[in-house]
Amino acid sequence: MTQQNRHIHLGTMIHGPAGNMAAWRHKDAVIDASINFKFVKETALLAEKGLFDFIFIADGLYINEKSIPHFLNRFEPLTVLSALSSLTENIGLVGTVSTSYSDPFTVARQFASLDHLSSGRAGWNVVTSPLEGSALNYSRDKHPEHALRYRIAKEYLDVIKGLWDSWEEDAFIRNRETGVFFDATKMHTLNHEGEFFKVKGPLNIGRTPQARPIIFQAGASDDGKSLAANHADAIFTMHQSQKAAQEFYKDVKSQLAAFNRTNNDLLIFPGVSVIIGENAHDVENQYQEMARLVSIEDALNYLGRYFDHHDFQQYPLDAPFPEIEDIGKNSFKSTTDEIKLQAKSRQLTLRQVALEAATPRPLFSGTAQEVAEEIIKWFDSYAADGFIIQGGTPDTLDKFVEQVVPILQKRGVYPTDYIGKTLRENLGLSTPPNQFV
Amino acid sequence: MTQQNRHIHLGTMIHGPAGNMAAWRHKDAVIDASINFKFVKETALLAEKGLFDFIFIADGLYINEKSIPHFLNRFEPLTVLSALSSLTENIGLVGTVSTSYSDPFTVARQFASLDHLSSGRAGWNVVTSPLEGSALNYSRDKHPEHALRYRIAKEYLDVIKGLWDSWEEDAFIRNRETGVFFDATKMHTLNHEGEFFKVKGPLNIGRTPQARPIIFQAGASDDGKSLAANHADAIFTMHQSQKAAQEFYKDVKSQLAAFNRTNNDLLIFPGVSVIIGENAHDVENQYQEMARLVSIEDALNYLGRYFDHHDFQQYPLDAPFPEIEDIGKNSFKSTTDEIKLQAKSRQLTLRQVALEAATPRPLFSGTAQEVAEEIIKWFDSYAADGFIIQGGTPDTLDKFVEQVVPILQKRGVYPTDYIGKTLRENLGLSTPPNQFV
Repeated sequence: MTQQNRHIHLGTMIHGPAGNMAAWRHKDAVIDASINFKFVKETALLAEKGLFDFIFIADGLYINEKSIPHFLNRFEPLTVLSALSSLTENIGLVGTVSTSYSDPFTVARQFASLDHLSSGRAGWNVVTSPLEGSALNYSRDKHPEHALRYRIAKEYLDVIKGLWDSWEEDAFIRNRETGVFFDATKMHTLNHEGEFFKVKGPLNIGRTPQARPIIFQAGASDDGKSLAANHADAIFTMHQSQKAAQEFYKDVKSQLAAFNRTNNDLLIFPGVSVIIGENAHDVENQYQEMARLVSIEDALNYLGRYFDHHDFQQYPLDAPFPEIEDIGKNSFKSTTDEIKLQAKSRQLTLRQVALEAATPRPLFSGTAQEVAEEIIKWFDSYAADGFIIQGGTPDTLDKFVEQVVPILQKRGVYPTDYIGKTLRENLGLSTPPNQFV
Repeated sequence: MTQQNRHIHLGTMIHGPAGNMAAWRHKDAVIDASINFKFVKETALLAEKGLFDFIFIADGLYINEKSIPHFLNRFEPLTVLSALSSLTENIGLVGTVSTSYSDPFTVARQFASLDHLSSGRAGWNVVTSPLEGSALNYSRDKHPEHALRYRIAKEYLDVIKGLWDSWEEDAFIRNRETGVFFDATKMHTLNHEGEFFKVKGPLNIGRTPQARPIIFQAGASDDGKSLAANHADAIFTMHQSQKAAQEFYKDVKSQLAAFNRTNNDLLIFPGVSVIIGENAHDVENQYQEMARLVSIEDALNYLGRYFDHHDFQQYPLDAPFPEIEDIGKNSFKSTTDEIKLQAKSRQLTLRQVALEAATPRPLFSGTAQEVAEEIIKWFDSYAADGFIIQGGTPDTLDKFVEQVVPILQKRGVYPTDYIGKTLRENLGLSTPPNQFV
């Protein structure tokens, strides 16, 4: 990808009605969206109509009675993406799976299988699982601490990339006459023996249409950035401002050279909440309509989830955000750091922090024209290579596809048709060589 | 299901071109069938046209250069079944997952998700993994021995059924006005602590359309039968004769009472190889055409796989089948017992055993009329509740649907339309209560 043909990439989250944790109460919402396949299918087809590069399915491995409603009852990522693979043609299918609570042989197979089923549209969002409770569902005594999770993840990615190289592209000869099915010199046994994993291989599925599925990485801590610089094709991140995004962008891209990689090998996707309206007044009304749906109790629970399900009900609501020291540092590390920083620097009360966390102000809002300009500004100033749209209201994606995409196209920063056949081609990423060749 | 409305149930294997390990060489075969989604889709739609209750995807977790060709490069079961869920309407989707190399929380989610995606058509074929090599792909020092695998499986099934009962059917209220999303008294936390697993729950997906996915069990050893009598809705088994099938049927059904279950709660499905021809001569030609595709080296490898990849090339081909004592007893226990028994009682040479193992004589063969009669005879004599058709040639399923099904319908032993909407309803199985209610 040269400077000349650099263009904006887009993805969209699918996990329930867009907006906030109470969006299911919104008049325009599909009330059971997180477990409604018709909704998921229509959202994916809408994004495909808008030439989005991918849909993105988040995940979690622990719930309790205080969890976000659409996390209580939702599809598992690999199964729902597979179901979509046979109904869509171009859009990438990216799903979250944890390296802390899965086996690399199984995960390598399932994503490789999805890549074959979708003719090269699979992507894996690598997470190390932020929720302490995950350990309780997986027969573990204890959730591994943050740094250990990332050490496990690094080795896990070595293993899984090795397994994806088990077969060369032309290993399967299938000669009816001679009876030779495959070329044994093109089958590679990994024989990995590391600190955490011992995996022999080979994988029982051939090299995939994309050579291997696209790897997303979603942690923004230093460990997360380093893992991404080493292994990922794309980063899903969050920023409060263009300036913070530019700094993050520069920081991550500068780490690539150490791993023998170039700026084009890793794309950076901030997740952005968007509200599109007739004017500023309409946008504010839409935001307030959404914010009103969340009770203060729900907002405290929502905030608590980031801090290892900490109970914030014990503190006075209108006093300054409490001193909670290290709580949360082994959970959503970068998110909790940011919340604490904002609370301190802007002198927010607990009530303000909780309500803002539950319904963040949309990062991009205004008329379609204004939103398009903001997107282009971030892209042109190297704050992002693309964006993962997290709608601010249930109908944001509809409006975005109908109104914003045509403006981006007219401005020449967004394609007018799918460029390639695979997610890798659409993202402009090069094909990795087989490590055994 | 009363005696009056008992009818024949059918499923079909999908794992590559039907026939034997060399069927890919057959003139009528889709040469890359095991990784060709068009083939898989067309096979599923054909079986659905024939009103089959389900398709059945086998699996394995270890390959090496001597493995069966279509095991080297194949779809992973849950992903391919999910892809089929959005293209089919009535047929059940049954896939194999091992209890020895997976986490119950993940497997519970993935099958529950498939059940939601398919509106109640998911089935899980529970295996404990026969292949010793599996341990090498899953960071284990050693493959658990046979009895231990079944102890693990029993607890695993307790856990997974508990997780599937996490939510009552009407737990999700979703009241927009009050903001109440669910009824907390209808959410159940498992808190399982056993010998092998510690799983808290609840599962993060609601009760499934079938209350829970249908459970198949595929081991025919004593441990396997006991596990099935306790936990399974259906058994996939193999028999050489109607008499052996009747004995197995009686044995398994007699074990149900001890678990407070009735004869209608567990269906027995022998896997049957079928060749349909104009006459006996045509059938024999079809069989020989298929058998000829397998070299003796391939046949020895195929045989060896059942015996923990034992090397049979070291023995004289035309001497009596060698004494190999305990080899294989921790692998495919019931299969290797049967092979040894047949070799001894019929005084077979190694060559005969290997070629017969690689291309078994079809259990049901002849004209469509003759095959239909044989099926009815087994069904009427309580040798089976239904059959899993493993075609003897690549076009067996086409012929079966076109020619055998109409005869079975005319004889009143097979339905003329799908009876229910879910796999559970089509199999005539009752809905299990929620253990927490």
